[in-house]
Amino acid sequence: MKPFDSLGLRYDGKTLWVLDQTRLPHEEIWVDGSEPVHMVPLIRRLAVRGAPLIGVAAAASLACLTERGGSPEVYEGARLALRGARPTAVNLMWAMDRMKSTADPVAEAEAIFDEDVALCGRMADQGVSLMATGESVLTHCNTGGLATAGIGTALGVIRRGFELGKVAHVFVDETRPLLQGARLTAWELKRLGIPCTLITDSMAAILIRDGRVQRVLVGADRVAANGDFANKVGTYGLAVQARHHGVPFHPVAPYSTVDLACPSGAEIPIEQRGAEEVRRGWSPEVPVFNPAFDVTPASLVSSLVTDRGVFSAGDLGDGALARAMA
Amino acid sequence: MKPFDSLGLRYDGKTLWVLDQTRLPHEEIWVDGSEPVHMVPLIRRLAVRGAPLIGVAAAASLACLTERGGSPEVYEGARLALRGARPTAVNLMWAMDRMKSTADPVAEAEAIFDEDVALCGRMADQGVSLMATGESVLTHCNTGGLATAGIGTALGVIRRGFELGKVAHVFVDETRPLLQGARLTAWELKRLGIPCTLITDSMAAILIRDGRVQRVLVGADRVAANGDFANKVGTYGLAVQARHHGVPFHPVAPYSTVDLACPSGAEIPIEQRGAEEVRRGWSPEVPVFNPAFDVTPASLVSSLVTDRGVFSAGDLGDGALARAMA
Repeated sequence: MKPFDSLGLRYDGKTLWVLDQTRLPHEEIWVDGSEPVHMVPLIRRLAVRGAPLIGVAAAASLACLTERGGSPEVYEGARLALRGARPTAVNLMWAMDRMKSTADPVAEAEAIFDEDVALCGRMADQGVSLMATGESVLTHCNTGGLATAGIGTALGVIRRGFELGKVAHVFVDETRPLLQGARLTAWELKRLGIPCTLITDSMAAILIRDGRVQRVLVGADRVAANGDFANKVGTYGLAVQARHHGVPFHPVAPYSTVDLACPSGAEIPIEQRGAEEVRRGWSPEVPVFNPAFDVTPASLVSSLVTDRGVFSAGDLGDGALARAMA
Repeated sequence: MKPFDSLGLRYDGKTLWVLDQTRLPHEEIWVDGSEPVHMVPLIRRLAVRGAPLIGVAAAASLACLTERGGSPEVYEGARLALRGARPTAVNLMWAMDRMKSTADPVAEAEAIFDEDVALCGRMADQGVSLMATGESVLTHCNTGGLATAGIGTALGVIRRGFELGKVAHVFVDETRPLLQGARLTAWELKRLGIPCTLITDSMAAILIRDGRVQRVLVGADRVAANGDFANKVGTYGLAVQARHHGVPFHPVAPYSTVDLACPSGAEIPIEQRGAEEVRRGWSPEVPVFNPAFDVTPASLVSSLVTDRGVFSAGDLGDGALARAMA
């Protein structure tokens, strides 16, 4: 496999390195993900995360296995283990399905990486076309260079918007329970020199109400055929706030996040995670509800930004997504 | 001053003890608040908190000063320092104004304590009248025995409702940034044996959407004459979610939280707190927005529960609050 280098994933010609995102922002520790048997737990414990990036990372790990001369049986076992590492983001399944049907896993992984970089660029082009000048935007979770092989999905649009003068300020939801906004998005924006303000998730509503946010941009872990989409828990609540206050709300996702086999959001499996992510030792031992994702209906979407164009709620209701992705 | 004993405040005949709520739930440490000069920082750093309780605690501290024979000048200086310790909750100002106009500060502090206990009982009576049987309710922040001298405001209604079979389950918002839900409300409910589930603030919307919450009950730090009210940040967002999904939403507050001098929520001062409460060492050094409270308009209230009755949004718009409190 040819070497590559992204914010959260690197291949140096010998070893596939994963930036352990659970240690950010305080420590930048790279761990070896060349073995699928190591990559599976890295994906599970969110050392590598972000719907597009986990697909890329899993594919690269299979390419490494191929280069080491893994048998077809070992390859297929590894592929299935990777495919099932997390249940909600469809990019992982999409990438693993590509890695099944290919005759050349190494070239396929290279293509998946390169394509993800290109998709980010195209989403950014599409997304900035919606923006005016000097907007303040709000985002949730992390959808940038740490979530993709390229500049990101929603955060890629924001980054490109900043470069063009269309984005002046970014409000960052901290994104409980795992704080991807506070830890990762704030870190990325600071590195990029993009002005940002960190808030708790519970503060977004008043910023939207008070006219301090002109647009809400989020990622997606799976988009159903009708435009409903799963994303980090808290996204649905933001969509309701945006609708109530008349502020545009956009999921941003590449075609690889669209799952035409899912007719609607009701069919998207939602990963439930452990109680300690919420309790974190600061609450008593009480029961916890901890879905990693929630589903937002297409009816609350102003438009869905993809690499293949921008789809309004009306378009989505008319089945435009299925036609565009076919 | 006669001895008293509440969940978060005790007077043993000699010393006024404050339960340091910042150490809960892991440590129950009582600190001496007999000196107003010590009580002021205890209020500021939220060792003692909850709109009703900080009024009671400040009054009791002034009573201790009186019993030690403090001069009128020292008393007045202490009273003003306590009155200004936090800006949003009006109960503190209300209690300190009572402690100015009284000829007998010790008897006045006793009356404020006893009255707060009684007000909680009356709010509970009023609140449960709204409830059906076996409801699941959602609450935010802490409004129980740790926030008042009695059983609480919103959490007092919930506790009484549980005793009557009207409340079956409580969903507890963790309430970032200071986690009063995760640390304090979960602790109280566990002690009381009331079934509860802890969630991040960002999960409330999907529980409300999915019909898993029949009612939202919150406290208030100040209620304006028109029924707008300030409460812990995140309350406004919950009110929008409740309205969007047609779920009843009730602030619960005693008459001492009503500020008829505030015509509307726009006049309520909102305390801004430090960045570290949000960053907590887990984000990079980026700017933070950290209002401790937000304001919810009366138009989003199903009804306001007080010790003097239940007021619908229509009542509130008609000025019923001013008439009832006069």
